Amino acid sequence: MAISAAQVKELRDKTGAGFMDCKAALTEAGGDVDKAITILRTRGQARAAKRSGRSTSQGLVGSYIHMGGQVGVLVEVGCESDFVARTDEFQQLTREVAMHIAAASPLYVTRDQVPGEDVEREKAIFRAQFEGSNKPPQVIDKIVDGKMNSYYQQVVLLDQPSIRDPKTSIGDLVTAAIAKMGENINVVRFARFKIGEAAD
Amino acid sequence: MAISAAQVKELRDKTGAGFMDCKAALTEAGGDVDKAITILRTRGQARAAKRSGRSTSQGLVGSYIHMGGQVGVLVEVGCESDFVARTDEFQQLTREVAMHIAAASPLYVTRDQVPGEDVEREKAIFRAQFEGSNKPPQVIDKIVDGKMNSYYQQVVLLDQPSIRDPKTSIGDLVTAAIAKMGENINVVRFARFKIGEAAD
Repeated sequence: MAISAAQVKELRDKTGAGFMDCKAALTEAGGDVDKAITILRTRGQARAAKRSGRSTSQGLVGSYIHMGGQVGVLVEVGCESDFVARTDEFQQLTREVAMHIAAASPLYVTRDQVPGEDVEREKAIFRAQFEGSNKPPQVIDKIVDGKMNSYYQQVVLLDQPSIRDPKTSIGDLVTAAIAKMGENINVVRFARFKIGEAAD
Repeated sequence: MAISAAQVKELRDKTGAGFMDCKAALTEAGGDVDKAITILRTRGQARAAKRSGRSTSQGLVGSYIHMGGQVGVLVEVGCESDFVARTDEFQQLTREVAMHIAAASPLYVTRDQVPGEDVEREKAIFRAQFEGSNKPPQVIDKIVDGKMNSYYQQVVLLDQPSIRDPKTSIGDLVTAAIAKMGENINVVRFARFKIGEAAD
């Protein structure tokens, strides 16, 4: 079927993908824009996964001061080139992550950074809730895994649902940025200070 | 001798001290403004020392982003009341400390925070320079203490000479602020991120 220039433009506006990619996705989707978005996302994320191993030595340090200086955040977002670091989109991403951290107070960037003893303690608490139950162990393991996911969504930045759009995690935002900007991007580290909380 | 209103005004402008304090200091100094400044400073610092034990649960988190996002600093400066935290002067102090940290890259706020093993390593290096010398041990200790002061001036924020005025340390700035604002003030903590330095 023939794909109109207006459809391609709509898809480009919605995804930021290139002209040829949009046209191919629309053709594959039979002109259905929503379906074409899914096709582009799937491809973008496949490409993003390939890129996520590449090292990031460039980037931006961004800050966000909240509530008249009662909460402050510093975040380093890495990318591969100075060129991407200077784009408005990358600056926006950095700012959005900083604002999110101010509101959602994560403790770690990635799951790897959660101390092993914390993971064990949480698992033990969840497991203890099934003591004396007659559920089979594999079922309990599944439930505990599910509860651990909720725990990670509370303390791990990349697992947290974005404060602006709870259907999207911060990890999803980063993956979308990788797909869109064509470089590996990662949250390197952050600091969040709240007045009074450091007091002994 | 009679102290003129103009002299009191000049001293108040220079030190920020109260009217009666300025008048008393000028009388004591026989009308010599420079001498009166010294008198006020000495008293201010004595008061500051008394105040420095009081707990600070209020304050400000300030940030400073340098070189287009290549370096960023987050700093928490504490004080005793919300009222002082909101003054322009306190905000200026917070900003000045953040800018200083961006430029001077301290590693710790206070000497206490330097790990004991680092102190021992530095001392051992300095001491080794006198091996086989025939200086008496007390003399060597004195020289090593002097060299340790230079080491602290490199890594400890409060010991660092201010980048704006190398004759004043950041600790002096804080002490002056305590004397002027009449509350205990302290640098609670800071973070300084530079792009690329976190890479493994």
